[in-house]
Amino acid sequence: MTRFSGYFPILGWAGDYNRSALASDLVAAMIVTVMLIPQSLAYAMLAGLPPQVGLYASILPLVAYAVFGTSRTLAVGPVAVVSLMTATAVGEVATQGTQAYLAAATLLALISGMALIAMGLFRLGFVANFLSHPVISGFITASAILIAAGQLKHLLGVSAGGHTLPEIVGGIAGELGSINPSTVAIGAAALAFLYFVRLRLKRLLIGAGLRPRAADIVTKAGPVAAVAATILAAHILDLGSRGVALVGIIPQGIPAPALPVFDFDLVRTLAAPALLISLIGFVESVSVAQTLATKRRQRIIPDQELIGLGAANIAAAVSSGYPVTGGFARSVVNFDAGAETQAAGIFTAVSIALATLFLTPLLTDLPQATLAATIIVAVLSLVDLGAIRRVWIYSRADFSAMAATVAGTLFLGVEVGIVMGVGLSLVLHLYRTSRPHMAVVGQVAGTEHFRNIERHEVVTCQDVLSVRVDESLYFANSRYLEDRIAELVAQRPQLRHVVLMCSAVNAIDASALESLEEINRRLRDGGITLHLSEVKGPVMDRLKRSHFLEELEGGVFLSQYEAMAQLQCEREPVPA
Amino acid sequence: MTRFSGYFPILGWAGDYNRSALASDLVAAMIVTVMLIPQSLAYAMLAGLPPQVGLYASILPLVAYAVFGTSRTLAVGPVAVVSLMTATAVGEVATQGTQAYLAAATLLALISGMALIAMGLFRLGFVANFLSHPVISGFITASAILIAAGQLKHLLGVSAGGHTLPEIVGGIAGELGSINPSTVAIGAAALAFLYFVRLRLKRLLIGAGLRPRAADIVTKAGPVAAVAATILAAHILDLGSRGVALVGIIPQGIPAPALPVFDFDLVRTLAAPALLISLIGFVESVSVAQTLATKRRQRIIPDQELIGLGAANIAAAVSSGYPVTGGFARSVVNFDAGAETQAAGIFTAVSIALATLFLTPLLTDLPQATLAATIIVAVLSLVDLGAIRRVWIYSRADFSAMAATVAGTLFLGVEVGIVMGVGLSLVLHLYRTSRPHMAVVGQVAGTEHFRNIERHEVVTCQDVLSVRVDESLYFANSRYLEDRIAELVAQRPQLRHVVLMCSAVNAIDASALESLEEINRRLRDGGITLHLSEVKGPVMDRLKRSHFLEELEGGVFLSQYEAMAQLQCEREPVPA
Repeated sequence: MTRFSGYFPILGWAGDYNRSALASDLVAAMIVTVMLIPQSLAYAMLAGLPPQVGLYASILPLVAYAVFGTSRTLAVGPVAVVSLMTATAVGEVATQGTQAYLAAATLLALISGMALIAMGLFRLGFVANFLSHPVISGFITASAILIAAGQLKHLLGVSAGGHTLPEIVGGIAGELGSINPSTVAIGAAALAFLYFVRLRLKRLLIGAGLRPRAADIVTKAGPVAAVAATILAAHILDLGSRGVALVGIIPQGIPAPALPVFDFDLVRTLAAPALLISLIGFVESVSVAQTLATKRRQRIIPDQELIGLGAANIAAAVSSGYPVTGGFARSVVNFDAGAETQAAGIFTAVSIALATLFLTPLLTDLPQATLAATIIVAVLSLVDLGAIRRVWIYSRADFSAMAATVAGTLFLGVEVGIVMGVGLSLVLHLYRTSRPHMAVVGQVAGTEHFRNIERHEVVTCQDVLSVRVDESLYFANSRYLEDRIAELVAQRPQLRHVVLMCSAVNAIDASALESLEEINRRLRDGGITLHLSEVKGPVMDRLKRSHFLEELEGGVFLSQYEAMAQLQCEREPVPA
Repeated sequence: MTRFSGYFPILGWAGDYNRSALASDLVAAMIVTVMLIPQSLAYAMLAGLPPQVGLYASILPLVAYAVFGTSRTLAVGPVAVVSLMTATAVGEVATQGTQAYLAAATLLALISGMALIAMGLFRLGFVANFLSHPVISGFITASAILIAAGQLKHLLGVSAGGHTLPEIVGGIAGELGSINPSTVAIGAAALAFLYFVRLRLKRLLIGAGLRPRAADIVTKAGPVAAVAATILAAHILDLGSRGVALVGIIPQGIPAPALPVFDFDLVRTLAAPALLISLIGFVESVSVAQTLATKRRQRIIPDQELIGLGAANIAAAVSSGYPVTGGFARSVVNFDAGAETQAAGIFTAVSIALATLFLTPLLTDLPQATLAATIIVAVLSLVDLGAIRRVWIYSRADFSAMAATVAGTLFLGVEVGIVMGVGLSLVLHLYRTSRPHMAVVGQVAGTEHFRNIERHEVVTCQDVLSVRVDESLYFANSRYLEDRIAELVAQRPQLRHVVLMCSAVNAIDASALESLEEINRRLRDGGITLHLSEVKGPVMDRLKRSHFLEELEGGVFLSQYEAMAQLQCEREPVPA
């Protein structure tokens, strides 16, 4: 029962739900709704989908997350990076504006949802560890630049496409002749207003006596104000007839739940992008959820978060939506507005549903340039060039992985970029651990301690070589161990014994075991005996499952001191 | 000069060359030649190439390795697994028996050689570490089974193709009606004779008074005896007219050196298989070379081995050959026969060249079934089912990677198999290290030691939590660290301080740094101070390059004892 209820976190909080939580959650839901409506429309446009799809993706998915998610304050829905990845993935199998494009987007949500749930049930969340911080950070910065560049066409009123920076810039450059002045005017006004709201308004409001948190929340309503003002302007000035692209008629009502058409070939094509979208969405979402939970000393359960986000995506798929995940800005707003439980998400879903049913006629005259401005302002805050500099200073290896991700994403596309970054960080990790620190050790005179002969004044023997390895032994470094031992032995013609000091070895995998067997055999053939010392308990337990300890020519000593005492080595003169 | 001469190991040994070494090397070369001739013909057939190509690949490559290689006794040339991989790779771009097939095989050797040399010059030999022992071992076993199955058609005298076990078995099953009895008879006789030689002859010879080493070498001449006997039989009984497939006329002479045709599209298609062939060949070759070198306390230099093998492959490419590497059996024979320097390889090359010039007319009547029998006997000794069992007992994780490699190779082909094995072993490694051992520690009463509270009777505090992490912190486990700390904090409402004990942390990468910053921020927001203790010198140096130490709310203590003394914790009652 406990295991079962673990899959339904709602059973944990719904029972204790009270009037005070209800009030807080309702207020938070109203504020998030105001923020979410323009975002939903804008990110749907970014994904190449009709605006109402963004609204659909902000209803059922929120309810599903409220039932299955463990974060009390995470706000799910369409987000910028996932929308860009959706546009890329779906753009490869269908043309924007067609029914096939819509179908592919919902199918993508379905595959992504199933992948997330599968990862959750099989506790495969660790796969997200493949995405290192520098890779994620570089990917988000590069995606934000791509997204902002891609929105320029809406601000200029030209039509251009492309999935990489050169394609986008080239496309816009080719259309500079057909810029629409009215569109530029409305876009520039929206952009200026939104930047003013973001950079100045909060300080002005605080100066006028508003509490900082309230000022913060009012600030988040900026996009809604921009939407309202530009709708009004478009309506009064009849901007539609001046060539300004408007959102147009949005179908009222909510589509009946339906499963996406399951085309097996399409599933195969979309599987890899769906997995990437799932992982990126999960990593981002968990990071926000973790941050907010710790502030209130609450807990989230990452494996259950996979199920929560998976359920949200399947809900998106059955309600004609597209892939969703937890959004950073809106979760912070939800938290700051005082949301106490996942019920805030359900209330948000209800208000979005009401808006979809009754407010959509008001959006007909909304200029697309306003949405583009909203997107640009939102995503440019994700560009973190400082992070690139910090990683450069901290570690060149991490920087290379980050640089590969940024360059790959900008110039070859989002999927290639992320795969390049992950591949390079794996290779670099393997490189780092493939050459572990190994020290030839000697006895510190008068003690039982053995230290690196290069750093300390120690006593060594001519016929016994003691080597300490400062790393667990596994496939990436097992051959290096073989090579290093071979090298050390080749330099010492009088050698009779080699003692491998294993105090820092936490694990020995099958590759390393075979290397040890090989080292033992080779040394034996060369007339040298291999011994081990200070082998940890769990490592020893595992070695006992193999024949290595029987084949080992020498002994396994509890301490390096004991080894040296038993081997009665011929002391070398202490270096002067 | 030293660096330069490092690239030409021949400069190191040719100067000291003397008459005694000459005598030893000449004897070894003769014995290796006897073994190499039937192998060259057989492996060329396995690669889908005319028999003379195997001879060409056993001349210049040996000379190139003698100049650039660091192993004194490694014998390079065509080997079974690489020949199979060649057949697979080239089979995808050309049809057997065509000029295009030949050209693609030499191009494959060229790409493989250039890849090896590039890896050697840039010291990228560590890439071979991606191939864990269980993956290699599983791959060789599965390849050997595939090769043996693929030769059955030659033993039965039927024509069938296929690159996977089901294809091969299905192909032969469909041809069972057209079995050629004479071919079966000659094949079965050759197979029986070769197995007799391998399993019995050595013991008989030793029983008859021969020294074991000499008996061993005579045994290796078994294939030549089989070749001679079956040629004679085919000639006398006119087996060719009875439908027995014979080798046919082999062009006499050695082709003039020429570069393979460089077709860019073809290069792109062959690049990935060429890289796999290079890595597999390198790993196998270095393992043999290392084993033999250590026996005589000599050294090989793995990065220079890449250059040596690369030179050998380029030599193969310019002399109409195909990919080569160091062979296990023939290197052992070379070593046992007393080879002292790389000159033995040059002498072997000269004898193979002479054989190519003068002996090939004798091979016209050689039945292909004899070569198939040679291959089967040679490769079945590579099948190591015991290794699979040992890995199963030792580690289930390693076993899964091995099983994936075996199944992938047998049922989906050699390239898919190796990629599946490598991929899975990386994922499993990440999984293993993504959940490092973390212990909450307390003070052993009356000492300055801090131990795991679950294993020792220790004193802890209500408001201070001390956690020790037993692993370097990097991207694979940084999020786990965040999750674990969040979990531990959520359980302890009275907490004011968290001390992270870093005695076992050898490195902190940029991902882990960011996680630490995040943990610091989150704890601060929750009213808890993060401290570090026992940070190693190199780790501290790196942390100083970041702003973490300035942002850190708490202190960095030299020892855990000092940390606890300073934090003046409220002692919890000692558990009874």
